[in-house]
Amino acid sequence: MTGSSSAAFSDTLINALKSILGPGGLLTQDTDTAPYLTDWRGMFHGKAFAVARPASTEACAKTVKLCAWHKIPVVPQGGNTSMVGGATPDDSGRALVIVMSRMNRVRDIDRIDNTMSIDAGVTLKAAQDAALDAGLMLPLSISSEGSADIGGILATNAGGNNTVRYGNARELALGLEAVLPDGRILNLMRRLRKDNTGYALRQLFIGSEGTLAIITGAILQLQPKPKSIETALCAVADARAALELFAAFRNAEPSAIQAFEFMSGLSMQLVNTLIPDAPLPLAEPSPAYVLVELASPRGGDTLRGLMEEVLGKALEDGLVSDAVLAESEAQRQAFWKLREEHSEAQKRAGTSVKNDVSVPLSAIPEFIDRATTACKKLIAGIRVAPFGHIGDGNIHFNLVQPEGADGAAFLACDHEIMDAVTAIVRDLGGSFSAEHGVGQLKTYMMPAWRGGAELDVMRHIKTAIDPEGIMNPGKMLPEVG
Amino acid sequence: MTGSSSAAFSDTLINALKSILGPGGLLTQDTDTAPYLTDWRGMFHGKAFAVARPASTEACAKTVKLCAWHKIPVVPQGGNTSMVGGATPDDSGRALVIVMSRMNRVRDIDRIDNTMSIDAGVTLKAAQDAALDAGLMLPLSISSEGSADIGGILATNAGGNNTVRYGNARELALGLEAVLPDGRILNLMRRLRKDNTGYALRQLFIGSEGTLAIITGAILQLQPKPKSIETALCAVADARAALELFAAFRNAEPSAIQAFEFMSGLSMQLVNTLIPDAPLPLAEPSPAYVLVELASPRGGDTLRGLMEEVLGKALEDGLVSDAVLAESEAQRQAFWKLREEHSEAQKRAGTSVKNDVSVPLSAIPEFIDRATTACKKLIAGIRVAPFGHIGDGNIHFNLVQPEGADGAAFLACDHEIMDAVTAIVRDLGGSFSAEHGVGQLKTYMMPAWRGGAELDVMRHIKTAIDPEGIMNPGKMLPEVG
Repeated sequence: MTGSSSAAFSDTLINALKSILGPGGLLTQDTDTAPYLTDWRGMFHGKAFAVARPASTEACAKTVKLCAWHKIPVVPQGGNTSMVGGATPDDSGRALVIVMSRMNRVRDIDRIDNTMSIDAGVTLKAAQDAALDAGLMLPLSISSEGSADIGGILATNAGGNNTVRYGNARELALGLEAVLPDGRILNLMRRLRKDNTGYALRQLFIGSEGTLAIITGAILQLQPKPKSIETALCAVADARAALELFAAFRNAEPSAIQAFEFMSGLSMQLVNTLIPDAPLPLAEPSPAYVLVELASPRGGDTLRGLMEEVLGKALEDGLVSDAVLAESEAQRQAFWKLREEHSEAQKRAGTSVKNDVSVPLSAIPEFIDRATTACKKLIAGIRVAPFGHIGDGNIHFNLVQPEGADGAAFLACDHEIMDAVTAIVRDLGGSFSAEHGVGQLKTYMMPAWRGGAELDVMRHIKTAIDPEGIMNPGKMLPEVG
Repeated sequence: MTGSSSAAFSDTLINALKSILGPGGLLTQDTDTAPYLTDWRGMFHGKAFAVARPASTEACAKTVKLCAWHKIPVVPQGGNTSMVGGATPDDSGRALVIVMSRMNRVRDIDRIDNTMSIDAGVTLKAAQDAALDAGLMLPLSISSEGSADIGGILATNAGGNNTVRYGNARELALGLEAVLPDGRILNLMRRLRKDNTGYALRQLFIGSEGTLAIITGAILQLQPKPKSIETALCAVADARAALELFAAFRNAEPSAIQAFEFMSGLSMQLVNTLIPDAPLPLAEPSPAYVLVELASPRGGDTLRGLMEEVLGKALEDGLVSDAVLAESEAQRQAFWKLREEHSEAQKRAGTSVKNDVSVPLSAIPEFIDRATTACKKLIAGIRVAPFGHIGDGNIHFNLVQPEGADGAAFLACDHEIMDAVTAIVRDLGGSFSAEHGVGQLKTYMMPAWRGGAELDVMRHIKTAIDPEGIMNPGKMLPEVG
């Protein structure tokens, strides 16, 4: 016997869930569930009959098992900072949202292996802090690190500022623990750098956006804490100059580059004007900026020398028109604030359309030129505000509504704008989702971009692991039809 | 209508294959096919009705499509240097072996992205050389690099000497091209550092040992060529001292360590005595050795200073009893020869049982101690000759037959020995196959080690992608039953 959909809302079911999840483990009142039913950008609104907050992997497993029995859709949610509606349920009200915030233990840190075993519900910031407390570093940094949790960053294979040196979330995870759609626990919590024993299930589940399993724990590879860090903000003419500066640093010492971020003049201006205490630390505004950070586990002033050597040459060559080096940790934080507040500033400037795209490094200048022209042609007064991880070929090509225009009307054009931008990305061999994922915002793009054999294989895998389709339905893979 | 097994050997089929593969593309004579039907170690012998050598991805795809129609098993083979019989067909004679040696083009090298697009049949050595010619480096190095090809190293997620710094084959592949079991071409040839658009199929196919698809091409991430390299051979007391030395280098400058290899005294002695021109360049033999290599893309003598600083301190502390630095490229090659010839020397010493295992770094000394005791207890006179990539926690815990004993009798105990060693590995949270894969040698271990939900999910994936089970049957996944 299998439960019907009406059974999903029976008192019996609610009581069974309450019994599994314990006091405070199940939220059913609208006021309690509301924060979990709208995404951070306010673009997607869903319904759920309840929100589950398991306090252990076992409780999570039992919850999913019950949902599987009743064929109740399960929507895993991390810090609810998805940019693509990846963690918001549909509006049927049949779903159970599962959040990991009560699973917030750092299980163990090993100082010989430099590994951290951790619950999925720990926020990225808390995990970074725990690593620092142990004299180590968790080298993943994203703007939402205060809310995003470990499960979320792994489910979406988050990237961020340090990918250029340490890779994405994928590269940092040695081990994984997950609950399968049938409620079984998949224990891949191995802390081995080499392990070729069967299919790379860990790799498959990382980046699967909650459509195959719920990640409940992980073992992360930590790095030695840098003993010296040098950070500089540079004024450059355009993306071409930024790329040349990147090449100059890479030629001098590639393994020292910890971050290499690009910011357009308009995007920086929005931060300077709309975010408190975020002034531009340069004499005058520039068409574009680079934030470069070098780091080394060795002490001494070698790194300062390297930074001054490369920037000195770049100033001489006219590649950089002005530059300022952080002289204290406070100043470094101030530089980083200018970068981290880009999304928030754009939010305050009105509605915006986001294109989280990547192209091969060499194609970045052409991409920015062509996409800027295309967007300006589409909507008069559109504010083109790209920024991002140029060292990885990853640009957040964001468009802010024209000043004083109707935000909703602008947003109604989002697919038109996205399609214009991504057509150019595609022409240049890029990706329509570099690091934010597909979620529900971009599922419609999958057939055109990843169709044919690729999408077929993805669907076969989805059906093989989640035959009833209960895991985060409607995300990533478009409906067949 | 589907072909019967007898149809597999009809003239019509052979002619169809010949027509697809062109002149020299299909080998059917026993003398021609023999080299492809026995593994490098001489442990596995199989049969095949023919060996196909497609010259293009399209020819490979058509060949597989024909096999799919006739339900003919397909055995992809790279350089045929699998340590686990991963590329040898079974003895039914029904299989078609597909080798990539005619697909040997470096398609393109991009000097801005530092990427290489390449056919699967290019040997690793040829790929390394092509990168060097372009002023770049392909940082994957294994003993069999002269024969192993790109398809093989990706299908097995090869590791080797530089994993400690650059990762396994998996970490070097940005893009992949493969032929699916139904003969369709899966084109994942993207050269993007960030691309979160659906399931990580590339990651799933890498390391799947030819059981899901045949890899026909790849895009590899290259690195700047080091301008300075320092290599030293050190005499140490045991694995514990080797690990302490690793920690000393890691604390000084982790990103400089390009290789950190361990060799037992016995294993080195076999090389010195059985391989021509491979003398020990130290005053006297030691119970164990470390080969450490530092590399940097910067010139100057900083690296030499770092090497001397760390080794000087280690000599002072008694951690290292003797050490010699390579004073020329020729001497560096001579040091590496001592390491690379370990497998060959052990082959010349008689039969051997290989355990390609990994444990967390901190557990290595305990593992070597306990496994040595266990093996000596099992077989009197057994020669314990471990070596390997200690910086990755990966030890080749190899056992050579007692001197003058019967090789076949020794080999008859291989499962007994492997089980004794791997029981300890398992106790320490390790893996029974760190980098060589499962092949046909170790399939029997899968249920005990990766059973339950993990093996179930693997089987679901296999069935979803290869429903007829024609891709490299009998490898990796044990028969259900």
